[in-house]
Amino acid sequence: MAKPALLHIAKLPVVPDSQEEFESKFEHFYLWDQKDRESFFKEKGSLIKGVVTDTKGWVNEELLQKLPNVEIVSSNSVGLDKVDLNLCKERGIIVTNTPDVLTDCTAETALALLLACMRQIPAADRYVREGRWPTEGDFRFTTKVSGKRVGVVGLGRIGAAIAKRCEGFGCKISYYARSKKSDYPHYSYYSSVVDLAKNSDILIAACALTKETTSIINREVLDALGPEGFVVNIARGPVIDEVELVKALVEKRIAGAGLDVFVNEPEVPKELLDMDNVTLQPHVGSATVETRNDMSRLVMDNLIAHFSGQPVLTPAE
Amino acid sequence: MAKPALLHIAKLPVVPDSQEEFESKFEHFYLWDQKDRESFFKEKGSLIKGVVTDTKGWVNEELLQKLPNVEIVSSNSVGLDKVDLNLCKERGIIVTNTPDVLTDCTAETALALLLACMRQIPAADRYVREGRWPTEGDFRFTTKVSGKRVGVVGLGRIGAAIAKRCEGFGCKISYYARSKKSDYPHYSYYSSVVDLAKNSDILIAACALTKETTSIINREVLDALGPEGFVVNIARGPVIDEVELVKALVEKRIAGAGLDVFVNEPEVPKELLDMDNVTLQPHVGSATVETRNDMSRLVMDNLIAHFSGQPVLTPAE
Repeated sequence: MAKPALLHIAKLPVVPDSQEEFESKFEHFYLWDQKDRESFFKEKGSLIKGVVTDTKGWVNEELLQKLPNVEIVSSNSVGLDKVDLNLCKERGIIVTNTPDVLTDCTAETALALLLACMRQIPAADRYVREGRWPTEGDFRFTTKVSGKRVGVVGLGRIGAAIAKRCEGFGCKISYYARSKKSDYPHYSYYSSVVDLAKNSDILIAACALTKETTSIINREVLDALGPEGFVVNIARGPVIDEVELVKALVEKRIAGAGLDVFVNEPEVPKELLDMDNVTLQPHVGSATVETRNDMSRLVMDNLIAHFSGQPVLTPAE
Repeated sequence: MAKPALLHIAKLPVVPDSQEEFESKFEHFYLWDQKDRESFFKEKGSLIKGVVTDTKGWVNEELLQKLPNVEIVSSNSVGLDKVDLNLCKERGIIVTNTPDVLTDCTAETALALLLACMRQIPAADRYVREGRWPTEGDFRFTTKVSGKRVGVVGLGRIGAAIAKRCEGFGCKISYYARSKKSDYPHYSYYSSVVDLAKNSDILIAACALTKETTSIINREVLDALGPEGFVVNIARGPVIDEVELVKALVEKRIAGAGLDVFVNEPEVPKELLDMDNVTLQPHVGSATVETRNDMSRLVMDNLIAHFSGQPVLTPAE
């Protein structure tokens, strides 16, 4: 019997102890190897039974019409904002993602960004490396994190893991979500992001990107946060109105930002590149060896399960 | 009645709401203003009743013999490694420091360094700023912090505050101290730093600098930590054998380091300046506006208390 054919539209990190089984169980096609994509889709499109993607690969009408026999899309990410979930549902295509295994790592990225931008860790690190400490003296004083009021936008798995870590710093936790979460009675709930921002020193975006959350942190929210406030984004670029964020930073209407995600990755607004009160990361939320191994394994295991006639491990919710 | 005279050998940050009272209650001499120090000490030395210092100013035999009437040394620091405590005790000079008010800030500096060096936050920030993300693609994978084994060297106020924050990251906490601490039964105690290092992924120095703790993290300890291990130092430079630390980093016998303190501050070993797995800070442990205000106020309040005939607030222990 022919092995099921997979189309990889994003590179899956290699996992030493799982790779061989995965390689051998499927026929693999890699989109980036196809010089003539039109011919490739014409010849092989109907063979493809599964798609491997991640945060960067679009799985939309345009792609799926070339792959009429796809049964499953396995994404190496928790967010599925580039996968057309409605279309997949319509066509009976199973979609899987990688929840849970990346929660801790992404939450620690948020804490790293929070500490880095408020305490200006990368700027102070540059100060030392550029030899300025002996000639210019002590670095400027920065802003204390411990005990501050943290507002989390989106209290899902990752938001809750961020909040838990902030508690260790004596921070008071508030959150915005579509509804109050009964699991977290000790956190303050706000049904409006503006009200959350008014009552926070730090606003952390940790929600999925959907139509509703696009630009959920807009000019009004940034002004409610105010000139002493910091913004952290480990969700997706478009959950913040990036034009307004840049304006607020340039005009010092907020104090600083820690950003792992941007609207037009890998492009980053050039106004941010010289700011010491901003920490910039190249979308590394879950990018540790440990977590990326776990994620890759889960992407593979979902595909193996499906084509062995088993239920997938982590269907998209 | 003449106001008591203070000699400032280190600059005390200005605190808006306490400065005026402090200025007016004392006659102030600033060592850095004295062009001819010999004449200054000859003319004014016997007038000086109090000394204001910090982590950088030496209060030793050489200084104190020029100030025969000093009653109190008020240091803007928790560590007193540059104050000759035995000599002060002999001469009946009261020494005060600034414990507690800087605990949270210094502990958060440790977490910032830990996250920054393991997740390579400053290196990834440089990668974005240098425009390498669009041209070179994704940043390398780094090392996950959450769930790792943290070994704290010195479980005093600051060590305990670091441990508490690490617990939020699901880390298993162990510690070395002169004796087991009954307050922390859920942490594992090691009576040897080598054994602690063997059982840790991350070693954090948080002890006072004394004769006993000088080079307490030496070559043997670094090798016990091993090539996957990270070192963080927010204590004092000399608690780590810096020559051996640099060698271990160059030879990749440890994985990385986050360093706020160095043996010859503000000089930093030049071998470290190009390393992406090392985060360097210019001794900013407590250097936030909030904490430095609190510390300055406490330095002033100790002096005001003493010269009002009251007991000082925070005598050195």
